[in-house]
Formats: sequence, structure tokens, C-alpha cells
Amino acid sequence: MKKVVTLGEIMLRFSTATGERLAQANELTVNYGGAEANVAVSLSHFGFESYFVSKVPENHLGTGVERHLRSNGVHTDFLLKGGERLGTYYLETGIGERSPQVIYDRKYSSFSQMDTDEISLEEVLKDASLLHVSGITLALSAEMRELVLSALKKAKEYGVKNSFDFNYRGKLWSQQEAGEAILPLLPYIDICSFGRLDAIHLLGMASPNQPLSQTEELKYYYKKFSEEYPNIQYISSTFRSVKSASSNDLQGNLFANGELYQSKVHHIEPIVDRVGGGDAFAAGVLTGILEGWEPEQTIAFATAASALKHTVHGDCNVFSKDEVFGFANTESGKIVR
Amino acid sequence: MKKVVTLGEIMLRFSTATGERLAQANELTVNYGGAEANVAVSLSHFGFESYFVSKVPENHLGTGVERHLRSNGVHTDFLLKGGERLGTYYLETGIGERSPQVIYDRKYSSFSQMDTDEISLEEVLKDASLLHVSGITLALSAEMRELVLSALKKAKEYGVKNSFDFNYRGKLWSQQEAGEAILPLLPYIDICSFGRLDAIHLLGMASPNQPLSQTEELKYYYKKFSEEYPNIQYISSTFRSVKSASSNDLQGNLFANGELYQSKVHHIEPIVDRVGGGDAFAAGVLTGILEGWEPEQTIAFATAASALKHTVHGDCNVFSKDEVFGFANTESGKIVR
Amino acid sequence: MKKVVTLGEIMLRFSTATGERLAQANELTVNYGGAEANVAVSLSHFGFESYFVSKVPENHLGTGVERHLRSNGVHTDFLLKGGERLGTYYLETGIGERSPQVIYDRKYSSFSQMDTDEISLEEVLKDASLLHVSGITLALSAEMRELVLSALKKAKEYGVKNSFDFNYRGKLWSQQEAGEAILPLLPYIDICSFGRLDAIHLLGMASPNQPLSQTEELKYYYKKFSEEYPNIQYISSTFRSVKSASSNDLQGNLFANGELYQSKVHHIEPIVDRVGGGDAFAAGVLTGILEGWEPEQTIAFATAASALKHTVHGDCNVFSKDEVFGFANTESGKIVR
Amino acid sequence: MKKVVTLGEIMLRFSTATGERLAQANELTVNYGGAEANVAVSLSHFGFESYFVSKVPENHLGTGVERHLRSNGVHTDFLLKGGERLGTYYLETGIGERSPQVIYDRKYSSFSQMDTDEISLEEVLKDASLLHVSGITLALSAEMRELVLSALKKAKEYGVKNSFDFNYRGKLWSQQEAGEAILPLLPYIDICSFGRLDAIHLLGMASPNQPLSQTEELKYYYKKFSEEYPNIQYISSTFRSVKSASSNDLQGNLFANGELYQSKVHHIEPIVDRVGGGDAFAAGVLTGILEGWEPEQTIAFATAASALKHTVHGDCNVFSKDEVFGFANTESGKIVR
Amino acid sequence: MKKVVTLGEIMLRFSTATGERLAQANELTVNYGGAEANVAVSLSHFGFESYFVSKVPENHLGTGVERHLRSNGVHTDFLLKGGERLGTYYLETGIGERSPQVIYDRKYSSFSQMDTDEISLEEVLKDASLLHVSGITLALSAEMRELVLSALKKAKEYGVKNSFDFNYRGKLWSQQEAGEAILPLLPYIDICSFGRLDAIHLLGMASPNQPLSQTEELKYYYKKFSEEYPNIQYISSTFRSVKSASSNDLQGNLFANGELYQSKVHHIEPIVDRVGGGDAFAAGVLTGILEGWEPEQTIAFATAASALKHTVHGDCNVFSKDEVFGFANTESGKIVR
Amino acid sequence: MKKVVTLGEIMLRFSTATGERLAQANELTVNYGGAEANVAVSLSHFGFESYFVSKVPENHLGTGVERHLRSNGVHTDFLLKGGERLGTYYLETGIGERSPQVIYDRKYSSFSQMDTDEISLEEVLKDASLLHVSGITLALSAEMRELVLSALKKAKEYGVKNSFDFNYRGKLWSQQEAGEAILPLLPYIDICSFGRLDAIHLLGMASPNQPLSQTEELKYYYKKFSEEYPNIQYISSTFRSVKSASSNDLQGNLFANGELYQSKVHHIEPIVDRVGGGDAFAAGVLTGILEGWEPEQTIAFATAASALKHTVHGDCNVFSKDEVFGFANTESGKIVR
Repeated sequence: MKKVVTLGEIMLRFSTATGERLAQANELTVNYGGAEANVAVSLSHFGFESYFVSKVPENHLGTGVERHLRSNGVHTDFLLKGGERLGTYYLETGIGERSPQVIYDRKYSSFSQMDTDEISLEEVLKDASLLHVSGITLALSAEMRELVLSALKKAKEYGVKNSFDFNYRGKLWSQQEAGEAILPLLPYIDICSFGRLDAIHLLGMASPNQPLSQTEELKYYYKKFSEEYPNIQYISSTFRSVKSASSNDLQGNLFANGELYQSKVHHIEPIVDRVGGGDAFAAGVLTGILEGWEPEQTIAFATAASALKHTVHGDCNVFSKDEVFGFANTESGKIVR
Repeated sequence: MKKVVTLGEIMLRFSTATGERLAQANELTVNYGGAEANVAVSLSHFGFESYFVSKVPENHLGTGVERHLRSNGVHTDFLLKGGERLGTYYLETGIGERSPQVIYDRKYSSFSQMDTDEISLEEVLKDASLLHVSGITLALSAEMRELVLSALKKAKEYGVKNSFDFNYRGKLWSQQEAGEAILPLLPYIDICSFGRLDAIHLLGMASPNQPLSQTEELKYYYKKFSEEYPNIQYISSTFRSVKSASSNDLQGNLFANGELYQSKVHHIEPIVDRVGGGDAFAAGVLTGILEGWEPEQTIAFATAASALKHTVHGDCNVFSKDEVFGFANTESGKIVR
Repeated sequence: MKKVVTLGEIMLRFSTATGERLAQANELTVNYGGAEANVAVSLSHFGFESYFVSKVPENHLGTGVERHLRSNGVHTDFLLKGGERLGTYYLETGIGERSPQVIYDRKYSSFSQMDTDEISLEEVLKDASLLHVSGITLALSAEMRELVLSALKKAKEYGVKNSFDFNYRGKLWSQQEAGEAILPLLPYIDICSFGRLDAIHLLGMASPNQPLSQTEELKYYYKKFSEEYPNIQYISSTFRSVKSASSNDLQGNLFANGELYQSKVHHIEPIVDRVGGGDAFAAGVLTGILEGWEPEQTIAFATAASALKHTVHGDCNVFSKDEVFGFANTESGKIVR
Repeated sequence: MKKVVTLGEIMLRFSTATGERLAQANELTVNYGGAEANVAVSLSHFGFESYFVSKVPENHLGTGVERHLRSNGVHTDFLLKGGERLGTYYLETGIGERSPQVIYDRKYSSFSQMDTDEISLEEVLKDASLLHVSGITLALSAEMRELVLSALKKAKEYGVKNSFDFNYRGKLWSQQEAGEAILPLLPYIDICSFGRLDAIHLLGMASPNQPLSQTEELKYYYKKFSEEYPNIQYISSTFRSVKSASSNDLQGNLFANGELYQSKVHHIEPIVDRVGGGDAFAAGVLTGILEGWEPEQTIAFATAASALKHTVHGDCNVFSKDEVFGFANTESGKIVR
Repeated sequence: MKKVVTLGEIMLRFSTATGERLAQANELTVNYGGAEANVAVSLSHFGFESYFVSKVPENHLGTGVERHLRSNGVHTDFLLKGGERLGTYYLETGIGERSPQVIYDRKYSSFSQMDTDEISLEEVLKDASLLHVSGITLALSAEMRELVLSALKKAKEYGVKNSFDFNYRGKLWSQQEAGEAILPLLPYIDICSFGRLDAIHLLGMASPNQPLSQTEELKYYYKKFSEEYPNIQYISSTFRSVKSASSNDLQGNLFANGELYQSKVHHIEPIVDRVGGGDAFAAGVLTGILEGWEPEQTIAFATAASALKHTVHGDCNVFSKDEVFGFANTESGKIVR
Repeated sequence: MKKVVTLGEIMLRFSTATGERLAQANELTVNYGGAEANVAVSLSHFGFESYFVSKVPENHLGTGVERHLRSNGVHTDFLLKGGERLGTYYLETGIGERSPQVIYDRKYSSFSQMDTDEISLEEVLKDASLLHVSGITLALSAEMRELVLSALKKAKEYGVKNSFDFNYRGKLWSQQEAGEAILPLLPYIDICSFGRLDAIHLLGMASPNQPLSQTEELKYYYKKFSEEYPNIQYISSTFRSVKSASSNDLQGNLFANGELYQSKVHHIEPIVDRVGGGDAFAAGVLTGILEGWEPEQTIAFATAASALKHTVHGDCNVFSKDEVFGFANTESGKIVR
């Protein structure tokens, strides 16, 4: 089994039941999750030896994180304990026309205040095939940006593939700040994930001169980008058409070898929980790449994994590789008995 | 803050969980609500000093009503205590093709048996900007019809605007009875709400000679009606296209200054709870009128408020003015994080 | 009231909440059900004196079966007690594109190991108007196949109408086995239920020479079949178009007097629980036949009953004859108050 | 199986979860129950052919009553349908020092407004061994008192044993009214149930001249009473020592053949739900009498049945005769595995 | 109605269900509470015009606080909105021998970072009869200590009675820090609450020379203390004998006019939720003082209020003055019906 | 970290909510557990590298077992997948005087039908410090008895300590069968657990000649037994005094070096869930032995661990070594904040 490593923050999510407002709630559902942790969980279910690097407080919530990761087969050897608190956020679940709403309460978390020398990058990256990080970590502090850069460099030294998901969060920083933080990392990246808006607003790429279809426009940015960063062999993203908070269309894009590969469009309705949908997709793409699948298969798998994630509560894609393939290949919604 | 007053009955609603039949239920969800109380709650959330006039029994259920109103910022100074019982009703929640079903158990309630002299209309209406009542109260008894008439007259004396929602309920009385009860009130009304069926069956208005579109037909009735009652400056209603118990299209209509203003069509799917949707609309219309907004803005706001109400459990629109505007103006269903 | 009898296995179903995976569940919903038991329940609600013949263990689960049947008005005089265990199965509820999944744990059940002489067929069938069985029972063992054959023969002796639902379950046996088991029963059947796939794979019927519409093709098989088995006066089935696990279109077919009668298409969305949908349909067809309704009315009733079943949790159609007619005849989804 | 008949009102009970106040509740647990219905349920579980005579509305709540009774094996042949409403009551569950609180909302119920000639007492009592009624029914109206008297007389004609439980409810009537209503019935009673306070306040019996132990005093009243009414062969009651709402000691008393037989003291802690505890006791006593057991066995059985009832939610004793005996005879609280 | 004011922090409490560990929880119950807010709620239920002064964030959680207070009749005119976050804490509910456990996550809260000049003490205290604060607020920061001191001084100017509850929390600061912070406030206090351990460790009072009973020792400290601070007319505390997390004995003490008055001992078992028990007691004492009751009545009322609080979930004593008196005066645990 | 190994069956437990009967349940709580699995979980929480050897089916329930074990840090390297079914059992939760009741449905399970050569005992036992098995496994089949014997022998070869818990289950086999199966294993055991009844009925030991106290009698059996089996260095058991299903007293006994060491008596009330209480105790004893603690400390720790287990739902002791010590050493039930 290949060893894969993700590094980032994991938080406690409080969500309301469907049709309830946060200010009226008597009970909240709790889930542990974070972009990179979710990718680690998916990769474990897809058959990798998966490690998650982070820091959580030395209390019952830290233990809760540990239980969550372990139950999903993720190794917690590099999950540090200490610091002040576990970051949390509140999700008022959306439905129909009403959007979900997020209140972050993640400042001063153990992870965001971790010293960069608390982890031995050597130990973490030894024998690894992949390191995955995301823009959310960069947004937390200058120290975190430093830590990520060191990790990416060290990974290159060790022959580990680097994956980076832009994961832009407008509530954490401005597009300009994000762009500036991401640029210096790009030379160390092998696989990355960003979309049209990121291309324009974070990378400052110029729009094409003539109007193009959504697909053609994306291809345009990816081509230009990959000419500038030939080290980046794979770029991925999804087209998400939000009909309502309960109904989305989802299509996956994977750019590889100068070509754009697209999955079929998944019509996801009703949506049970869309948190972590992007992370399931990212893990799917990484799986295909690590397994050496054809791009067509990779993008079909990744998008199916993401669509499946939308049908379960919680941040994580708790489906095995076989289940994702089964889902991708059979007629949707049929009962087998 | 402007003082607004609504008068009517508030009941205890027992509802089944989705997919459960009433006869099999082991647990029922309880909510307090009633057309006029719901309007009072909305008006409070929209920034008015809101009073609800009614009578509830002197027991834990009466206290429950009080807690419900207060938690929503509604003043309970004119909520009398006493009498025999709190009216209740049972709602077997519908879904898909299966309609919701209502069993009323509201007879002999404290409110319906209240003496008309138990309330001091002077105190209630002093300094108020608006009085809102509905046809449901008229259906309860002759005494109630008298009380409503006195209140409307007294309001006129005090310079208070009168709002009347037809709110016809076929389980309470016949269309003829309703028509006869409503007619004498109309000269005292400033703002009212009724639809095509009410125009024909309650007001006995003649259908247009030639076939008209739904919108044109409504305009036809409103025009004729406003010629007869020039005191009524605003008439509103909604077009509700019921695709199923889980999926409705909703469009708001506001007739003002001889013109019919229409909101965009909201596609509401899935519906969480449609009870109180009309009351949220009414409160939205009243807010626009009291705030002196343009009719276009008023009807957009009112219909958005109603659509939002359908996405939460309970009778009440627990969204602030800002939230309704945010909802009306942004792309539906997007998560912001 | 006419006496009707169904014979088969009843099991304990464990289902996950929507959006939960079985492997993560902390709580499971429990329901008692089985194809023939479900038909018995429906027939009781439709006004027949309904008996269910089966065997359950002498423990609290056997008592649970008894309570379930009795609460639905089904007579338990022929519900034997004894044997090793109650068969169970686990249902991971599907949603949207994700199919429901079934894990059977029904082997060694009291019913499947019942001796064929434990029941007195004479007593069971005395004065009955109808005996209903299904292919699921045939799949359990050679003894069961013998028991069913004896029962059908005895019924013929007693002048009881025999109904047989193919109910093919791929997890229990092969199509070939099923076909071989069913053939010898057909001469004793008056009413039966099977679809296009059954015609081809179980009955080995040849496809029509030219491409036909779905309806025409079904008619083709039914015609040929009824020529071979003139004793079978009624054949029924449904067309189910599975858009997703949450959205199906359903149309009922009834072949009688050489004609195919079809119901309107019910658009069922969202689906609450589709288990037992076919049994509700079967009971509806049987009701129409026993009541001597016109085929048009029978198939409209049966399909409406099935559509209604999809809107409630559990295996059973807990709607009365009047409710099904009300549902079939009124505009869907309207609230009446 | 002996046929037994009980006659009375059945209501819908709404109860709060432990530790919740009614005025704050978002959900209420619903149970159907009433003194005489509960006795009918127990008698069914104890092996009798049990009939409950009452009237409930023709709606889903009436259906709920029917399902409840049938699931417990009670025959509903004499359960009339019609009238205005089902009586309800609210129970704020007590705990520890805090007492449970009841709010009745039972006026105008279908049963309380039933005409006395709606039931054919002949049919009801034909071939019956026992008729059981209670003082609660007497409290409802003069018509009900008449009905009960007629039933008791008719029962005597038919050779049916009459059982009467005083069941005094201070919220329904005064002790004086109760006493006056009960007196005329006593000549027709064979088995009755009342305690020390009833003896003094309802029957107006004089206290003994010298201070006696609790047991001796009860014996004193029973002796005097049975001398006055030699037709009454059995008198029963319980001593309940209320340590708190969660902890009671319970001892059963049975007076027969001039002797007082007492059960052991059951220490019931924690109490799950004490509603129906007295009805379980009554049914236990009746079972012993109908079965011809020794008084010692009867009172042990009845008190054990009542203690068991306190350990389950709902009004009903859902334990079989064997289970009650098992409970009475084994060491309490041991797990068997 | 007398106006009363409390000032302090209100937090969101997350609690586990009984028998669940925090690290395994999938759902948490949420309650809003804080010592001074709880006192304000009780005082509102006891008939005062109650105001709570604090600061909460401008988000759905801030709205939740508002709803909570308003539903309990507390005025929110002085509830500021703004700042970073709402303080939270996690409660792993204890049971039997296992203690409850608290994890605080309250740093950086809006209240703790409020500027002292954000509130107009003049407006807050105008026409008030009472100001109540507690040692928890002092523990938050030097600014808070300053704010409290200013408020107490201003109150004295305005003729408002000052109440201070030591409320020592070992997780927030050391006993020495607490003692130093409290001393300067004492000259401005009229009513205060502390126990034996506070006397020794916070106030540094010397133990009596000879061994005394628990009651005598407390009297000794109170006497000495009241000689030093003759301005303090009332001192109160409870004796809590913790048999287990589910069973406590509680007795109230009130020192007034040089005498120690004690309530009866309440045996509280099982305990539903002991959070807020002390605040209910404090509010009871204040009520008696403000109402001018005899000390005996005051301490009986206060201790009964506290005992009642232990029987409901949440931080607040949601019982009226009448209910507390009813509880104090009737036999515990009896059902009235 | 020392490697420890346990071998046995793990099952799915379905339990009713408190106060509910199994035959009426609509929902059941699910837990995975089994004596040896529970010991493995405890040992993991106490700091050992813990392995559980068993076989579960290749389906979602097998995955559920895996998730359960992993979330508790137990290694699943030797958890085989395959076979027919996962054994289950139903627990009707007891309360007060009413005992819990168990219905086993564990026959034909994957584990019970596992071939003895499916596991490589060499790999399993390599580098292990401890092997723990119990009498439940012996009861399943002759093959299982063989497997256990081989494992114990192989362990001796490898220098692994063997622990054996008698765990007699009367529903699985007779005392005589159990005795005969256990005898041949005893020469290979280092640590074992049995009580007075096992000594008499399974081991056939003679009672002492004179009446002895409970403690003295146990010591008598342990002395005699250890003289016969000098290889067995530690014998343990608990005295459990069952006051009711909700209240037990528990005291631990450990015989070592010819002495009997006893813990203090834990009064456990209320009991949340007693399943697994014995396994928590066993794991505590093993921990002390493996850590080389003094017998006094070992038995205090083990009994505290068992008492703690009774306060949480589920089969497993989810407390760390520090938490157990904290519990053992602090005053019970105090809140720390």
C-alpha cells in the first residue's frame, strides 16, 4: 500500500437539522472534518496507507478527532496533541432556495498556533508517495504558509508527489492575499486543483479574447497555466451548477497531457450534505493518478466519488473503491434484492 | 419603531414526522401558531413593535404560547389568560402526491369564548400604526364578528391603518357565510388580501366576459373591487402552483395605484412546512406599505419572505428584514464560506 | 366481509436513516414485513377479513410480528409459533443516485424450516375467497415449493381463487430455478402478476419479432401467456421508471378479458420508502377483482395504492379504501383546511 | 377463553420527556389510554377474550385508538365511531421531588356525549364473564351514570360478574358528588376496589375509635363495608408509599372471605411511567378471581403486574401472565444470558 | 414590578446525552446560560422586570441568546451585539459515581473583550432595585474587574442594592487571585453569597479554634465577616452533600440580622441537570429580600427553587413563584389528577 | 507498547430504549461487542497494542465491526472476512425490579463456522505478551474448543501469557459441558477468572465444611484451585450484589501469591448499561499484571474500570488509564469547573 500524507486543520462542525434555524436549535449534529483530513479519509477508503498531519487539543475533542480518523483507517501517528482549542464552525443547513450558512469560530485553534518545528517533516514524508495540502492552511497565518512551503520543498527532496487544492475561502482572506500566498508554491506542485474564478482572481490570468463555452474557457486557462508551470502535470476542477441548495449538477474536469477530460454530469438531488464534496473529488483524482489509471477513468471515478459524498451526512466519503466503481457503472437508484 | 397590532386565535399544532401517519404516531411535534399571531411574529422580525391580542388558558399551554411569542419579540401585554382550553389541530404532514391533512380540535377555546369586553380596544390601538385581522376570527362566532367590527371602527377613529386577510377556511364555514360576514367590514379596510376564488365565491364578483390569463383575470377583479371600495389602497394575493405537497411555484401579486405588481416566481422544492406561508407573505406586504417602499420592492420582499418560510419548520417566518433581502437578491442555494 | 388468506414469510427489517451508512449506524429503524404479509395488511385496510399464514419464533420478536399484524387488523389465528429465529434483513436506504442496498440474513428462519404438515390447509382455506402466494416462498426450499403447490390445489378444491405474484429475487435464486419452480403452479392460478423480464427470463417467452412500444410488448407477452393458461383471468404488473432512488414514475397494467388496462402515470417524488410498493399494488388489484370493479377502476385504484405506499415509512399500505380513492381522485398535494 | 368487557373513555395522552417542561416542549410523546381500556388490554395479555366498549371520533385519532387496542389483542367490535373529538390530556412528567402534573382537555369528547342507547348492552354482555367499570365514567355526566347503572343491572340479569373501581379523580368532581353517584351502584357489584380515603370521604365511613396500623385500619373498613354489602365478595387496593416521583413502594391488598391478603412490598425505583399502574393491578386481581386462584396468589400476581407496569412507558401492562409470574418469582434485576 | 439588573457573560453549552462520552457524541444538546443570565431568568419568572447586561456576537448565536432571554421574559435592551465570538463550553454529563466534566472554550469572547465604556451604566441602573454580579466576571480580565467595580459604585450612587455571588471557578483563576479581586468590591455590597471554602481560601479567614458542626462553623465565618462588613446585610450559601452525580442533598443557609436561617434538606435524586442550581438559589434569596419576606420563608423558597432546577434540563429555573411555593409546600412526587 | 491478543466472537447487539419492550420497538440501538473484543478495546485504551482475532462477514456489518474496533484503536490485521452472517442478539433493557432479557440469534455466524486453519497462530502470537480467551468461544463448537486449545499451546511455546475468563453462559450450554471443556485448558493458563458458582458447578469443587463469609469462601476455593494448578498465578472475580437492574454493588477480588486482595465496594446507581462490565474488569486485571502493579492497585484499578463501564452505553470501556485512576481516586460525582 502506498503511503499518502495530508496536512491541514481539522475542525468540529455543528450543523442544524434540515428546516431548523441555528438560533432556535436545541440539538446540533457534530462532525469532525477539514479539507485535508477529508482527503486523507477518502484515500484510506480507496486503499492507501493514509496519514493526517495536524494538531488538536489534549482533551475529549482531540480524542474525538482521533476516533474519527481511526474509525476511517487514517493513521494518527502525526496528529499532535496540545494547544488551546479545537477550531469549530456552525452550519445552518440550507434547503431549496435557501443557502446553507457558515459561521466560523476557528481562530486561536491548536493547529493555527502550532510551531512549525513541532513536526518532523522527515519522518512524515519518508517513504510517502504523495503530499496533499490546500489553500485553507495558507490562509491561517504566515507561519502556516512557511510550514507548507517547507513541506513541499522537503517532499520534492524525498521524491514525493505534491498536490495542492486552491480551496479559496472568502471568509478567511481576500483573493489578492490568496494569490500572493499561492504563487511561490506553484513551482513545487505536481498536481493541482483550481477553477475559472481562481484563474482570474487568484492567478490574475487574462480572460480569453472571444467568448468561449464554459469547457473551452476552462481549457484555455489550463493550457496557459500548464505552459507556465510545466511541472504541474494534472489540473482538476468541477463544474457545479447550483439549481438550489437541494439540487446540483456536477461534472468533473481533469487536464492531463494537454487534454481536458470530462466526466458525465451527475444530477444530485436531493443533496444530503455537500460539505466535503470537493475533497471527495480531490481524493478521487489523486487515486487515479497514483494508480496510473487513464484520465477518462480517473475523472469518472473522482466525480462519482464526489456525487456519492453528497448522499451521506458528514464531511467524509465513506465509500470504498469498489463501491464508487459500482455506483459509477450501474443505473442510478435501482434497488438490488 | 412603529407599533403594530394583530388580533386572532393562536393554537397548538401537532404534526407528524414526514412519512408517518397520524394514527401510528408515537411522537408529535408541537408548534404554536395562528394566522394573526404568525403575522405578528413576522412583523417583529421585520423591525416593528409588534403586539398580539388574544386569549389563552391559564395553564402550561398558555405559558407555552407566551414563551413562543416572546422568544420572537412579540409583546404579550394584551394576551389574556383564562377560559377553558387552547384550541389545537393535528396535521398529518403531506409529501409528494399525498396532501397534508388537517383535523381541527379548536372548538370551545378560550379565545373563541372570550367576551368582547375583555379587551380595552383603546389601550390596544393607542399609538398603533396598523391593525391586522383575518377571516378566520370571523368564522368563530357572531361575537367575534362583532369584536372585529368594533376593532376596525375604533382603529379608524384612532387613525390606525386596517389590514384584512380573507383567509377562507372551508372546514370552518361556507363561502356564503364568509361573504356575508366580510362585506360589512370592507368600508373600514385599507389593505386587504384575497384571490380569484374569493372574488367569485365570497364577494360574488362576476367573471370577465372573455377568457383572460391568470394575471389579467386577477387584475380585472382587483380593478372592479377597488372601484367599489376606493378606501382599500392595497390588495394582495399569491399564485401558488401546487406541483405536489413537496413542490410549489409561488408568485406574489400586489395591486396598488391601479396597477398590478408581480414578483418573480419562486420554485419551492422541497417544501419543509407550508403552514404560515401566507402569513409570512401578508407580513411582507404590510412591511413594505408601512415602510413606504415601492410596490415592486414590496411584492418582491413579501414573496421572498413567504418562500423562505416554506424552508423552515413551524408556523413562523423567523428571518430578519436583512435576511429576506439577502435571500431575494442572491443566487439561490449557494453556500458562502 | 370476504375472507382472504396469504401465506409467506415475514421478516424484521432494519433500515438506516436517510443519508446514513449501515456500517456507521448507531440506531436502526425496525419494521416487520414480507410480501404476503404486506398484501394481507392492505387487504385488511381495504375491508376484507384478512388472514396471514406463517411461522415465527416463540419470543419477543414473534410477539412483535403478532402486534404488527393485529394493529393492522390482520387475523393471526394461523400464525404458528416456534422454530429457531425470525429472518431479518438490513436496508441501507438509498437517496438520489445512490441505490438502496439489501443484506439478507434470513436463512434458518422459523418459516423456512416449518414442516409442511404444521398447518391445516383445510382450516385455513375454509370459506375463503382468495389465496395469495408469491415466488419468494418458492425460493426458500423444496418443502416450501411443495407446501405452496398443495395449498393451491386444496384451494381449487374449495373453490378459492388463487393469486400468484412472481416476485423474483435475484439474491435468493437464479432465474432458471425460479422458472422451473413456477411452471407447475400455473395451472392452478386465477390471478397473477409478472413483468416483461419475468416473461423472458423466467417463463422463457420469445421476444416479439419486431420492436414494440413498452406497452405493446407487454400486451404481446400477456396475450400469448393467457392463450397458454386460459385459467389465468387477470395478469398485472407495473412500469416503474427509476429516475433516481428518490424519484420514480409508476404506471399500473392490468390484463383482463384480452385487453390491457393502464392507469395514469404517478410521479412519485420524493420517495419515502419503496419497500412494499409492489405488495400494495397487488392488494389493490385483488381488491378490484374481489369487489368486481371495472378493470379501469381496478388498475387506477391499485396504482394509486402503490403510489401512496411510497409516501410512508414501513412495508405496509396503511390507507383505507376511501383514502386511496380520495387520493386517486383529487389534485395532488393540496392542503384541505 | 372467557369473554370480559370493560366500558369507559379512552383518551390521547401527551407527555413530556423527563426533565422537560410542557411549556417548552417541541415534541410530545403520544399514548392512548384510559382506566377501563387499560384493564381491557391487561386482561387480553392475561389470556382473556377482551372487549372494550367506548366511542371515539371518526378520524385518524379514532383510528389510532383502534390500532392501539388491536395491537394489544383487544376486540373493537363495540368501539363506536362518531362525535366531536377525542378527549386528551397533557402530562408533565415528574421526577424526584417534582410531581407529575396533569392538564385535562377531555370535555366534549365523543364518549362523554354518547347517547346511552347507542350501544346494545345485550350484545355487549352476551356470554361475558365479567363487566368492569370505574368511577371516572360516572364523573362525566348524568347520562353516563345512567348508562353504567343500566349496564350493571343488565349484567346481573345475564349472570355476568360486575367489577367496579372507585378511581376517584379530584379534578373531575367533588368527593361528595362521587359518593352520591357510587352508592346506588354498590348493590350490583361483585368485586370492587377502593382505599382508606375513599372509605372515609366517598363512603362516609367512620374512622375506627382507636389508632390502628395502616393494615388494620384498612381491614376495619373492608370488614364493615362487606357486612353492609355482602354481595361484594372481593375488595382490593394498594398501599403506595411515595418517596418521590421516581421511587415508590407498592403493596397490594385483597379482602376475600373476611380476610385481608397482602402481597410483598415492591420497591419501584426508578419509575418509568406510573400512569396505568392501578389499572394493571385491577386487571391482575380480576384475573386471579376469574381463574379461581387462591387469594395469596391473586394479590401477589396483581401487585407484581402493577410493579411491572411502572417499568414501561405508556398506560398499558404489556406483559403476559407468564412474564408476570416470572417477574414475581425471580430475583429482581438479574440478567439471564 | 421592580427592575433588577444582572451583568455577566452568557455562553453556549454543549452537553452529551446521559451515558455518552463527548469524544463519541454525534449530537450535542445546546443551551444558553451563564451565572448572571440564569439569575436574570429566574428573577423574571419570579415576577421582576429583569434586565441582563452583556455582549454577544452579531450572528445567529447572538440571536440565539436573545431568543433564549426573551422567551424567559428577560429584557435585552442592554444586550450589546458585536465582537468575535460567543464563549462556549462542553459538558460531559456525569451519572452515578462518574462526575460531569467541563471543557471551557470561552476565551476571546465578545463579552470578555468588551470595552468598559460600551455600556451606559446610568441607563442600565436608572430606577433599578438591584444589581447582581458574580466572581466569574472578575476572573475574565482586569478590564472586567474595573467594569464591575464601576457598576457597583454607580449603583450605590443610584440607591440600587448590590448583590455579589463569589462563584469561584478553579479552572479560571487561583484562589489567591480571586481573593484579591473580590476584596475591593466588598464595601459596596449589600447581599452576598459564599461558603466555607471561600471564607478560608478566598477571604483568608481563620478557622475556628475548636471543631464545630458544619452549621456552627458557617455561622462563625458569617458572624466574623458581617462584623467586618456591616454593609452586607445578607449572606447565603448552600450545603450540598454529593452522594453521586445523580444524588445530592441540598440545604440552604441565609444569614440575616446576626442569625443563620436554614431550609429543610432536599434530597434530589435523580438529578436531571445541576448546572444553574446555584443561580436558582441566588435568585430565590434575592426574591425574598426584594419582597421583604421573613428569612425563614426566603431560605425555604430559595432552596426549593434550587432543588426544582435540578429536575429540568438547561441552566434555567423555569418555574414561577407560585410553582416554587407549591413545590415547597406539598408532599413530594405525588401526582394530582 | 506491549502487544496483546484476544480471540473470540463479536456480535451486533440490538437494544431497546429504557422503558420500552422489544415487541413494541420502532427503533433499536446498535452496538458491536463480544467479551474478547471488549477486552481488546479496553486494553487499547489502557495503552497496549491490541489485536482482536475473529471472523466477520464480507458486508456492511463486517465493515461496521472494523470501524468499531479501529475507532477504539484495536488492530484489525487478524479480523478475517467471509462466511454467512454476523451473530446478533437482542437486549430488552431492564430497569428497577425488571431484569434485562437477552434473545440470542448467533448461530451460523462467520466466526462460529470459521475453519481452525484460517488463522496463522504463529503470526498472531509472534511478539505478543498476552493471549486472552473466554469460555463463550468454547461453547460454540468442538472446532472452536480445538482452536482455543491450539492457540493456548502455541502461546506457551512462544512465551506468551495466557488469560482465560470462564464467562459461563447458561443459554449456550450446560454447566457440565462447560466444565468438561474447560478442564483440559487449565494446564496452559496463567491468569484466570471465575467465581464461586463456577468453582462449584463447573469445576466441581466441594463446598467448605463450615459456613464461611462470602470472602472467606471465595478464598477457600481459590486456594484449593491454585494448589491444583500452580501454573495459574492470578485468579480474579467480582462480587456483584444486584439490588435491582438499576442498582448494583460491585467489589473486585484478585488472588495472587496466595492472598486475596479486594477493592472497595462501588455503589453503581443508576446503571446505564451493564453489558461489558465484566470485560472491563478483566482488562483492568490484565493491565495491572502486565504493568507489574501491586495487587492492591491492580484490583482497585480493575474494579474502578468496571464501575465506570456501567456509566456508559455500549459494550466498551472507553476510558483511558488516567481517567480510570482519576475516577478511582477522587470523590464520586463532583463537578470540576
